[in-house]
Amino acid sequence: MTIRAYAAPDINTSLQDFRYDQTPLAPEDVAIAITHCGICYTDIHMIDNDWGLSQYPLVPGHEIIGTVQAVGSGVSEFTPGQRVGVGWLVGACFDCETCNRGHENYCSNHQPICVGRFGGFATHVTADHRFVFPIPDGMDSAKTAPLLCAGITVFNAILSYGVQPTQHIGIIGMGGLGHVAVQFAKAFGCEITVFSTSKDKEQQALALGATHFVLSQDEQEIEKRKSTLDFLLCTIHVDQNWSDYLDLLRPTGNLCFVGVPPQALNVTAVSLIDGGKSVSGSYIGNRQRMREMLSFAALHGIEAQVEVCPLIEVNEAIKKVRNNQARYRMVLEMD
Amino acid sequence: MTIRAYAAPDINTSLQDFRYDQTPLAPEDVAIAITHCGICYTDIHMIDNDWGLSQYPLVPGHEIIGTVQAVGSGVSEFTPGQRVGVGWLVGACFDCETCNRGHENYCSNHQPICVGRFGGFATHVTADHRFVFPIPDGMDSAKTAPLLCAGITVFNAILSYGVQPTQHIGIIGMGGLGHVAVQFAKAFGCEITVFSTSKDKEQQALALGATHFVLSQDEQEIEKRKSTLDFLLCTIHVDQNWSDYLDLLRPTGNLCFVGVPPQALNVTAVSLIDGGKSVSGSYIGNRQRMREMLSFAALHGIEAQVEVCPLIEVNEAIKKVRNNQARYRMVLEMD
Repeated sequence: MTIRAYAAPDINTSLQDFRYDQTPLAPEDVAIAITHCGICYTDIHMIDNDWGLSQYPLVPGHEIIGTVQAVGSGVSEFTPGQRVGVGWLVGACFDCETCNRGHENYCSNHQPICVGRFGGFATHVTADHRFVFPIPDGMDSAKTAPLLCAGITVFNAILSYGVQPTQHIGIIGMGGLGHVAVQFAKAFGCEITVFSTSKDKEQQALALGATHFVLSQDEQEIEKRKSTLDFLLCTIHVDQNWSDYLDLLRPTGNLCFVGVPPQALNVTAVSLIDGGKSVSGSYIGNRQRMREMLSFAALHGIEAQVEVCPLIEVNEAIKKVRNNQARYRMVLEMD
Repeated sequence: MTIRAYAAPDINTSLQDFRYDQTPLAPEDVAIAITHCGICYTDIHMIDNDWGLSQYPLVPGHEIIGTVQAVGSGVSEFTPGQRVGVGWLVGACFDCETCNRGHENYCSNHQPICVGRFGGFATHVTADHRFVFPIPDGMDSAKTAPLLCAGITVFNAILSYGVQPTQHIGIIGMGGLGHVAVQFAKAFGCEITVFSTSKDKEQQALALGATHFVLSQDEQEIEKRKSTLDFLLCTIHVDQNWSDYLDLLRPTGNLCFVGVPPQALNVTAVSLIDGGKSVSGSYIGNRQRMREMLSFAALHGIEAQVEVCPLIEVNEAIKKVRNNQARYRMVLEMD
């Protein structure tokens, strides 16, 4: 069978129609007919080879939902027709100390879907059954697809650092990740402040559960919020004066990065010692956390706000993401 | 009564003989006849006004042990003749959110002993009873004095970040703080690696409980230890390439600063995200932690390695600390 996909043939190109033949299923694999795939900023980093990882032709796409088409001989927990999802992570060694501790997302041999294999901007995808997740009934496929990366990333970051319901969480950036983080934080019971440069996102932030909305460029408003936050999640990819954000934290607070500002973080030891603060990072989540995230989202009706467009319009959709025009996630729909 | 002390009359001077009159005891105060006072690097930062906090004449000294001489009318838990200790922290508002959370060491109105009052390089000192701690029987006064700052600082840092007995702890710097940190980490059950620039400290590090000793300048040895540590405590005041130290951490590891390297920490978001790592700081500890530290040290026979010298030789002792010649803590003894 021939799979239709969109691929970047090389760095600095737009995506082009691309066909490849489905290889025979390995015993551990699940073949999936894709119905939806979100466009994450990581796809753009990969298209542009920002991290030096990209191999061309590159088929992006790692927020995948579809139905099981066939399973390998070693797979017993999935049946054809079942609705499933696949995220960024599709392999780990399961034999190292890190995997044995349950941190397969940090395994030094972990395998991202778009590196050395083809991703979800396509009609079909194949993945190891250990990285395929059942999608709970009742969830909308288009609105759930982005949870497979944006959702797990923010859910895991907040939970990994021991956030409590009585705490006040700040979220920097109201984009694909931030608008999902708001919903999780609300379901955790937290007071929430969203920091965004886009005034037009205020109503949506409040509607999704934010308690407060602060324009990031409003220095006076920022100043007023010193020492009020317990946890601050950075979902943006732009350098800031991070010392100013550390000042917003209460003693023992944590500034956690899931977005990737390029420059060094310009924080001093004394700014951490003074208040017993931390600066941290978090990377997607392990498989158990993914299952918990999907159950939790189903229980609380958490879903991404999406604009759906057909696969054929992928380049226009990517342009919207590049221009910060997605509200809040572009999702490709396969026909 | 006239108190004899040594004070820095101004910035960039050596300490000089200084006398001041004891003021009448406030109801909450305890007057202490000092027997021993450690010399911490913070005293030198204060003498030099490195943090812009210093007020002259400045009497340093905040690792104080002595006997209760008299108590104020509101103090019931101490009696004259009792052995007690006083550390860096001698006041907090006890009325703010931070204090109410039990973090009086991070209270924005917390009061260090040497700022606006006279410290422990003296025959006597007066402190609020809430910051005076009974010293467990059987502990040597000279060897316990440094625990009131160096001890609480490292004990609190390690415990605050949830370190487990099965973990591998790295300690950067084998000085006043580091050599006590080794002993606590050993008593916690941990595997311990000490990183030091002084080869001559290796035997002592191993004798105190370190499992491994690594010369910080030995790049090959450092390289071998990538991804082996769970927690890395920085006790030094010198800038390093902290990304290299982050590489030594296992996934979810934490690099914690109690020493104060002056420059920004030159770590990137991606170096934290990749491995879910943290960079953090910790500042002394609260009063409950101080009591726990003293009990724990008594239970496990933990004490500082000290060189004792009379108060009158304070300038020579400070010179040794400045020149990294103390093995491992200079302690003044009052006559």
